[in-house]
Amino acid sequence: MVITLKPGTTEKGIQHVLDKIKELGFTPHVSKGAERTIIGVIGENAIRSREIFQAMFIVESVMPISRPYKLVSREFKSEDTVVKVGNVEIGGNKEIAVMAGPCAVESRTQLLKVAQEVKEAGARILRGGAFKPRTSPYSFQGLGEEGLKYLAEASEVTHLPVVTEARNVRQVELVARYAHIVQVGARNMQNFDLLKEVGRGKKPVLLKRGMSSTVKEFLMSAEYILSSGNYDVILCERGIRTFEDGTRFTLDLSAVSLIKQLSHLPVIVDPSHATGNRDLIGPMSRAAIAAGSDGLMIEVHSRPEEALSDGFQSIRPDDFRKLMKEVRSVARALGRKG
Amino acid sequence: MVITLKPGTTEKGIQHVLDKIKELGFTPHVSKGAERTIIGVIGENAIRSREIFQAMFIVESVMPISRPYKLVSREFKSEDTVVKVGNVEIGGNKEIAVMAGPCAVESRTQLLKVAQEVKEAGARILRGGAFKPRTSPYSFQGLGEEGLKYLAEASEVTHLPVVTEARNVRQVELVARYAHIVQVGARNMQNFDLLKEVGRGKKPVLLKRGMSSTVKEFLMSAEYILSSGNYDVILCERGIRTFEDGTRFTLDLSAVSLIKQLSHLPVIVDPSHATGNRDLIGPMSRAAIAAGSDGLMIEVHSRPEEALSDGFQSIRPDDFRKLMKEVRSVARALGRKG
Amino acid sequence: MVITLKPGTTEKGIQHVLDKIKELGFTPHVSKGAERTIIGVIGENAIRSREIFQAMFIVESVMPISRPYKLVSREFKSEDTVVKVGNVEIGGNKEIAVMAGPCAVESRTQLLKVAQEVKEAGARILRGGAFKPRTSPYSFQGLGEEGLKYLAEASEVTHLPVVTEARNVRQVELVARYAHIVQVGARNMQNFDLLKEVGRGKKPVLLKRGMSSTVKEFLMSAEYILSSGNYDVILCERGIRTFEDGTRFTLDLSAVSLIKQLSHLPVIVDPSHATGNRDLIGPMSRAAIAAGSDGLMIEVHSRPEEALSDGFQSIRPDDFRKLMKEVRSVARALGRKG
Amino acid sequence: MVITLKPGTTEKGIQHVLDKIKELGFTPHVSKGAERTIIGVIGENAIRSREIFQAMFIVESVMPISRPYKLVSREFKSEDTVVKVGNVEIGGNKEIAVMAGPCAVESRTQLLKVAQEVKEAGARILRGGAFKPRTSPYSFQGLGEEGLKYLAEASEVTHLPVVTEARNVRQVELVARYAHIVQVGARNMQNFDLLKEVGRGKKPVLLKRGMSSTVKEFLMSAEYILSSGNYDVILCERGIRTFEDGTRFTLDLSAVSLIKQLSHLPVIVDPSHATGNRDLIGPMSRAAIAAGSDGLMIEVHSRPEEALSDGFQSIRPDDFRKLMKEVRSVARALGRKG
Repeated sequence: MVITLKPGTTEKGIQHVLDKIKELGFTPHVSKGAERTIIGVIGENAIRSREIFQAMFIVESVMPISRPYKLVSREFKSEDTVVKVGNVEIGGNKEIAVMAGPCAVESRTQLLKVAQEVKEAGARILRGGAFKPRTSPYSFQGLGEEGLKYLAEASEVTHLPVVTEARNVRQVELVARYAHIVQVGARNMQNFDLLKEVGRGKKPVLLKRGMSSTVKEFLMSAEYILSSGNYDVILCERGIRTFEDGTRFTLDLSAVSLIKQLSHLPVIVDPSHATGNRDLIGPMSRAAIAAGSDGLMIEVHSRPEEALSDGFQSIRPDDFRKLMKEVRSVARALGRKG
Repeated sequence: MVITLKPGTTEKGIQHVLDKIKELGFTPHVSKGAERTIIGVIGENAIRSREIFQAMFIVESVMPISRPYKLVSREFKSEDTVVKVGNVEIGGNKEIAVMAGPCAVESRTQLLKVAQEVKEAGARILRGGAFKPRTSPYSFQGLGEEGLKYLAEASEVTHLPVVTEARNVRQVELVARYAHIVQVGARNMQNFDLLKEVGRGKKPVLLKRGMSSTVKEFLMSAEYILSSGNYDVILCERGIRTFEDGTRFTLDLSAVSLIKQLSHLPVIVDPSHATGNRDLIGPMSRAAIAAGSDGLMIEVHSRPEEALSDGFQSIRPDDFRKLMKEVRSVARALGRKG
Repeated sequence: MVITLKPGTTEKGIQHVLDKIKELGFTPHVSKGAERTIIGVIGENAIRSREIFQAMFIVESVMPISRPYKLVSREFKSEDTVVKVGNVEIGGNKEIAVMAGPCAVESRTQLLKVAQEVKEAGARILRGGAFKPRTSPYSFQGLGEEGLKYLAEASEVTHLPVVTEARNVRQVELVARYAHIVQVGARNMQNFDLLKEVGRGKKPVLLKRGMSSTVKEFLMSAEYILSSGNYDVILCERGIRTFEDGTRFTLDLSAVSLIKQLSHLPVIVDPSHATGNRDLIGPMSRAAIAAGSDGLMIEVHSRPEEALSDGFQSIRPDDFRKLMKEVRSVARALGRKG
Repeated sequence: MVITLKPGTTEKGIQHVLDKIKELGFTPHVSKGAERTIIGVIGENAIRSREIFQAMFIVESVMPISRPYKLVSREFKSEDTVVKVGNVEIGGNKEIAVMAGPCAVESRTQLLKVAQEVKEAGARILRGGAFKPRTSPYSFQGLGEEGLKYLAEASEVTHLPVVTEARNVRQVELVARYAHIVQVGARNMQNFDLLKEVGRGKKPVLLKRGMSSTVKEFLMSAEYILSSGNYDVILCERGIRTFEDGTRFTLDLSAVSLIKQLSHLPVIVDPSHATGNRDLIGPMSRAAIAAGSDGLMIEVHSRPEEALSDGFQSIRPDDFRKLMKEVRSVARALGRKG
């Protein structure tokens, strides 16, 4: 890290900082300028002592040099991680992994019908919420374990693996019993205990980006899961919160490319929640694949106008078929398996 | 709610919407304009059917008329809620309730020392984290139950009630055994299961605003707690995430006044986390009280440069004494008990 | 528009509002609910009186029904506008219009060289700044008219039309004398006098989105130009300001699709300024075309490490050739002329 | 500045960077770590060469050490600047300077009436717009020079100096002929030619913060004015754009304290535009003064419900009198002249 001292710091002040650095076992490199003195501190864990220096009154700023995450970084592992779920492979420039299904599991009939429809259109994984995080305590909160059972049945019938959300530490084991991928929702991206819990599990984890989390924080949250022992993590960009009110969130596709630079983990994109606007889901799906996304997560509902949650952002099976055709076409144009 | 139909919607389309409204048990009021038709739907729970209409292809937009929260609203209860913790009263234009102490409990000695110091300076409640939510899995995560025991001891010695955070549903009971107020942190503001858990408890709850949550969402999260049976909720503004990088977050003081309009619940302000800058804590504390805040939450550390977490935003006991004097002076100037 | 009255408004209060509506020449439609009364006001210009009602103490909110822009909207003109510049056509699902060149014109030699290079790689329009808006008064501000002359010469040699920025009302005529398209920069998107000035001109206008402007405001600014008489407007998405600090701005590609829904004007994307990161320009260019963008604006510099401004976000001619190949491939995959 | 090289950079690469630094006349200080090499570059203008290094492929990042502004900084001038306008002094912990009046000048009668009213309540400067920047080309754009004449007349009658906005470079001279302070609006904060134009003038300048500008950019814009020769600059915080939609903008009061640390220039606060909500103007005015603001800018309209622009955020003379009493009381409580 680099420590910058305030203008006018005395020799004694500089010495005080140098002593502290040495006491902590690091090597300081001093550069004295006309106005300010800067001190480079080299050492693998130097940045963990950051706060000690920030708290000193003669210190103007402390800047990290190396990145705060290790296991998720490209520097730690240069080749792409491929997460295997049944016979689906996610990451590593393989086939585009599309997860599709209803926002919430509403009934057995609804789920079996739509599962069959998304399968026929080319989805490789079935999505559907049994435990729904809802802004209002008065909204439909999901069918719970009953919903998980319907998902397991739909998976058996269609041979599609299933991804669904665990909303708190207590649900992780239950969800993992029925699902093939455990989802951590955007509102829980910094629920650190939940991250550790899914990190101790054996099932692959789909981690959604918090709506106001930087890419760095997103990777730090993934680091929690990997450092707890689970390396099968799929990241999902789903829109960030900005001032723009023409869409529900702002889909941040440059984050996809940026993560690909910084990390070896697979990344997918959820344009349904990001835009909250049916008509933008097709274009944003094509754009996501063109930007290098390893897959998509799409809400499909046989009758969106009757959906118990988020009907406005669901598309019909027909539209989904068209979308699949287009994204495959884009993938092939860029030399990927469509 | 008000449903606006797209330009060019046919009579048949309009009739379809009207039928659905009536089927759901509400009364529609139609206004046909030159370009668009709008339909008012009156009924207490009409908005819960919002998504049904949003999903219709002829519908351009659906706008709510009444607010989505009930129990937390001024309309439900017009007089200020006063939360009583020991002999401290928070809310209702009473004495300013200042909660102070270290970011994290680091040791018995450290805590007892600073507890005494903040008490002497005029703090009414002791704060200190035993379970710390940290961005990095490699940072100090708190002393856990050991920290809770030190807090209980410090409370006994100083007669100050204690507030500390429960980070997940499993910790709520444990924390409530030792603390007088259970804190839900900003990163957990939409951890809905945790909200329900503290809502089923008997201890007052300090709910911090999520860093990218609107005031409306903040109140909806409080509604989760009240609707689970616990009416003793204190709201805490602690800065929101914006593009400004000169401060850690942007302290949103207009939220304090806005909440006072919309809700009967007490509101306090945490300028330490919001600014991340020791020199701004004094001015922002004075401003918070001038804006109508019922209290403050301040990080105080006897030796900030040795703090294990967030040392940069902690002030020394001396500065805290000065701060207390100033905020009392502002309070009295505005006719409140200083 | 829809006026919502506060709960508890008396009959006399309601009558007062109704009288005012009629006085202004509009027709009110009243819906009385249990708690609130809402009044629909139909009439083409009703919303212009919005503030009159907002200022009434019994009014809770006033919501617009129709959109505030007219000439730029799809409702006004359903078919795509195609802006013709020389033999290049922008908009209407034609060939992808790529504008490329250096951030700033630095010298005659530099410009002629890079102009030739981008032409060979497939650019259809030459870009380059003669008047540069710079955050610091001490930064290079551009060559001024000298730069315009070099642009004109480069255009003659390569037969590429030229786009360059006019930074204030006084420069519009001068810039229009040399350039084929007059650019209004992001920082000037709400410089309303500049908008009117280019609106009174005859040259096509490239309007960049303000870094914190909503799509609605962006279209309103375009409306200024159209309502001043100039219908040849090209919109350009170039990233918005958010909390994310891993990229310079956040490229908002959903805005491209959204604008296509709302307006008939052509839209292009500038990934160079948006990302500020050379490695993301390729992926974001492909994604922009996949999202439906009519073109791109790319910074190309023969030797980026010697650029006088924004070298970090410039790519080399080699990379640009690769980029052109990829975006054409994506375009063709989606049935457009590559 | 500090240059960080990518991991794995060769000795030859390092030497290339060092040669360039020396060629530019600066002294490098190298620190080689296990993974990365960092190079400190000391020299007053080193940062101006930032882009040269950022553009090198082996460079990971370039971080500035010293601040980019000079004349506006506390380091350049430690004592507070006091701007004198007639017999009013703004800055330097003097009397609170309150500027009040209507959003727009609508008629001679309206202006003279409200000027008298705000004077009686304690305002020291009269505000009112003659050239209004409006989002829509169809909204009332102000009375122009006629409005300026009414302002001059109101100033003569009340002996209050006048502040009003110049919207483009051509209006500066005209506005300066009638007004005592020339205002640069938020949408023009980075209209660099306008900044230079008012910088070449002799009248004090009120510079409003752009709605998405960082404090650093705000100070850089002020630097444009000072470096053009005009040192009488008053900064005005007026709310920034965030995701929060309960208020029109988010008033950033920590910016006031932060600017006081970084700069010697006076700062005032405009709570009317920031909140867009009449009921929040009083609390935010009190908070602004408590945070250390040198003054306020308040919209007052005798009959807000008839205002031609922004009626919703105007308060009545009665409310203004109450507000003045409260802010004076806060000022005196903090040892300032009320």
